[in-house]
Parts: sequence; structure tokens; C-alpha cells
Amino acid sequence: MTGPDTTDLCPEEFVTFAKTLAQRAGEISLDHFRVEVAVERKGDLSPVTAADRGAEAALRELVAARYPSHGVVGEEFGPHQEDAEFVWVFDPIDGTRAFVSGNPQFGNLIALTQGGRPLVGVINMPAQGDCWIGATGHGTQLIDAEGSRPAKTRACAKLSDAVLRAQLLPLTEPEGLDLLRPKVADSLLSGDCFSYGQLASGWLDLVAESGLYAFDFMALVPVVEGAGGVITDWQGQPLGMESDGRALASGDPALHQQALEVLAR
Amino acid sequence: MTGPDTTDLCPEEFVTFAKTLAQRAGEISLDHFRVEVAVERKGDLSPVTAADRGAEAALRELVAARYPSHGVVGEEFGPHQEDAEFVWVFDPIDGTRAFVSGNPQFGNLIALTQGGRPLVGVINMPAQGDCWIGATGHGTQLIDAEGSRPAKTRACAKLSDAVLRAQLLPLTEPEGLDLLRPKVADSLLSGDCFSYGQLASGWLDLVAESGLYAFDFMALVPVVEGAGGVITDWQGQPLGMESDGRALASGDPALHQQALEVLAR
Repeated sequence: MTGPDTTDLCPEEFVTFAKTLAQRAGEISLDHFRVEVAVERKGDLSPVTAADRGAEAALRELVAARYPSHGVVGEEFGPHQEDAEFVWVFDPIDGTRAFVSGNPQFGNLIALTQGGRPLVGVINMPAQGDCWIGATGHGTQLIDAEGSRPAKTRACAKLSDAVLRAQLLPLTEPEGLDLLRPKVADSLLSGDCFSYGQLASGWLDLVAESGLYAFDFMALVPVVEGAGGVITDWQGQPLGMESDGRALASGDPALHQQALEVLAR
Repeated sequence: MTGPDTTDLCPEEFVTFAKTLAQRAGEISLDHFRVEVAVERKGDLSPVTAADRGAEAALRELVAARYPSHGVVGEEFGPHQEDAEFVWVFDPIDGTRAFVSGNPQFGNLIALTQGGRPLVGVINMPAQGDCWIGATGHGTQLIDAEGSRPAKTRACAKLSDAVLRAQLLPLTEPEGLDLLRPKVADSLLSGDCFSYGQLASGWLDLVAESGLYAFDFMALVPVVEGAGGVITDWQGQPLGMESDGRALASGDPALHQQALEVLAR
């Protein structure tokens, strides 16, 4: 049994349904991937593709049909019953700039929250062929071409041994990363959902980002925690719908406090 | 018929053999991908994996058996008959930091040069499932899950409309990129062989890098030129074994001079 609190066992039906949503979002993404990408390329830093809207509309329909009492919050359309006990949180295409440049490094992010706390999270990367699913009390699974297997973070107790993946570009708190990067063994520059999958599978140690919205990070929480890692904001507080958009994830819980102290300087 | 000079039609047997080499390098890469990655992660900024050396050794054996008079230059082992008319140039794993962090965004780079000029180039990305092959007089093909099809750059005649992919980190000439990035519509931060595949397929417009070695860029030249693009050093000179490690690729030839002028400031 994995997860921060074993009383919060996520019902199996929600895990299964989250997989169904991820599958559908992936299909719609791939229908539009590497097709007509030139149309939206010019100067639009956050292109909203047909895939983005098509996928979110399809997911909303599936939720409404199966769980009409549940709420939905997504990147593309307005909130629906956002005060419901259970709320689905979608970023149909996380990494739209990758998407429009033919880069498979984009994901469909799907989360289910209960009372604002994430119960299930899916990072589905359909063009890359990787899907991480985490759920409270179930641990995290990586499904890829090799099949399905548990994802586990790796041990790394010292900041000076850690590999960090962090976004460099438009950050609300660039200073924090400027402090953190010299302290780690290596840093990879990227800001996308794949970073958290890599961390969950023990391929890197730290991820730091800022400027995120709830639909960007809610799905990440069960994936990271179910794999044995820790994810909070930069003050060490749990991520929730009201968070300030800064996320820090550590594969080894022993690393988290060290990284928080550097970011707080 | 595509290519800068139709008298330089690359013999078909070299194209076929380059594909064989790419296939073998891809198989060896995948044998080691997402396996035991933790071993080499600590503080080694350019990890030399078993895959790297294993792939290069295998390619050298294949060349020696088929074309014993040809030379070989690779990243991992010393040059062999480098003054021969035909020389194979290998970077068995371009993107070792991606490789050791479980990221499919690495490539096997294979080139054949004649008298120092690249005749055939392959950017094979086995974990991502993409392979670009360019050869003088044959044009460029993209082979992916959808099959094989011609790769063509897209039109983009104005710098202010262009999407650039450029490496930010340890650059010998960071100033040049600092000048170029504000002039384009959007810039994506990455330095890897995939950028040139994206450019060849018309998914972005400009790639600028520095700090490259010949085994990093020789394979890129036939891929970019065969797709209708231009690739030179930052002075506009053809890339060759003696180049200074700076490369600029433009999908639309009309864009190339504009970008060169900015980089030269």
C-alpha cells in the first residue's frame, strides 16, 4: 500500500475511468498530431489547437454521461460544478508548443479531486507511448510499449548528487532556479509534464517549475506520491486548486527539504 | 531530383547500407534504454553509456566487413583511415543526457562523406520512432510509425514569423543567440538532433547551435538539404570536418541570409 494516507484508498472505478479518459484524449491528440501544424505556428506562444478543444469537449461529455454529479475544471472551457465533492481537472494538451512543432513530448493531463485533494492523476503521452497513472492507495504504474509496471522513484539523499529538470523560460520566480541549479549535479532545461513521469520512474531526482495552473499540476500529485516521491509548492505546502503555481517534486523525500531551503533563500 | 548539385547523385547502395547501420544502432540503443540508468547519473554531464560504445563498435564492424577501404570517424573511438575517399562519421548516441534520463529524444547519427562532403545522412531516433534519411540527389525521407514519406521544409520568408529551436546552455557563442531570439516569432530551447528533423519536416523554421563536433553535424547536412533547407556555419560557409562547431539551419532559403546577418552582429 502506497500513498500518504492509506485511509484514502481511491475507488477502483475512478482509476479505470481515468484510464478511459486518457485513452480518448490520446486518440484525439494523435488525430491532429503532425497534421496542418503550420496553421497556428506564427507568433502564438500558446497555440490552442483543434486537438486541445476537441479532447477537452470529449472528456467533458464522458464525465457528464458517467458521473453527472461530478464537476469539471479544464484549460479550454469554463468550470462546471466546480464546488462538487468530486471534480475532474483536465489539461487536454500540456505542451502545445511541442505539439505544434511535431514533438511527441506533450501530454494529456487528467486528475480527479475529492474536496480539492487529488485522488487520481494521469500523465498520458500518446505520441511518445508513455502513460503514468497514480491513485491514492494504489501506487503509480507506467504503461509503455513494454507493458505495465510499477513506477518507483530512486534514492538520492544529497542535493549535490541530484539531476534536476526545470523550466528556464518565462518564470515568475527565476531567482529560485538560479539558486537551485548550481547546487545540483546536473540540470536539464525543460518544463513539461514528462519531467514528473521521469521523476516517478527514477530517471531523475528533482523537478522545479513555476507559472503553473491547477490543471497543469493536479494530475502530477498522485503520480509523484504514488511512486514514493514528494510534491509541494515552494513553501512545502500541499498543491491545491489555490496554489500559487510553483511546484517542487523530489524523488527521494530526504532531498525535498534541502531543495526547499535553497528555493526559499 | 533534389539536392544542391545533381551531378552528386549518391549511389543507392550507400543509402541502403546507411539504413542498415541506423537499424543496428537503434537496436543496440534500445537494448540499454531505460535500463540501469542510475549507474551513470551522478555528475557526469556527458555520460558514455554501454549503448554508445556498443553501437559504435558494431557499426565499425559492419563498415569494415562491407567497405574495408572506407574510413571511419566516431565519437567513441579513434579515427580509422580518415583520409580515405569515403569516410563514415558516427555519433552513436547524440543526446546522452536525454538517454540516461529515460527521454526518447536521443538519436543515432550516421553520415557518409566523400572527399569531406556529406553524401548521406541519417538521424535515427529509435525510442521516438522517427528516422530521417537524406542523400544527395535522393531528397529526404521521414520513416515513422505512419511509414515512409518525403520530408519537406516549409516556407517562412520573414525572420519575425520564424520558429527557432536553439540550445541555450553551454555555448561558445551565447551572444549570437541572444541577438537572434528576440527577432523570431518563438524560440524553443533544446539542442539535439531532433531539431533538424523537425526543420526538415516543416515543423519549425530555424535551428542554431554551437559547440558541435563534426560527428554531431555531418549527418544533418544531407537531411536538411534534401528537404529543401539550407545549413551552414554562422558565416554562411558549408559545414565540413574543419568547421568551428557552429551550425545554422533554415527551412526556407530566403530566411538564411537574414539569420546570418543577425548572428554576425
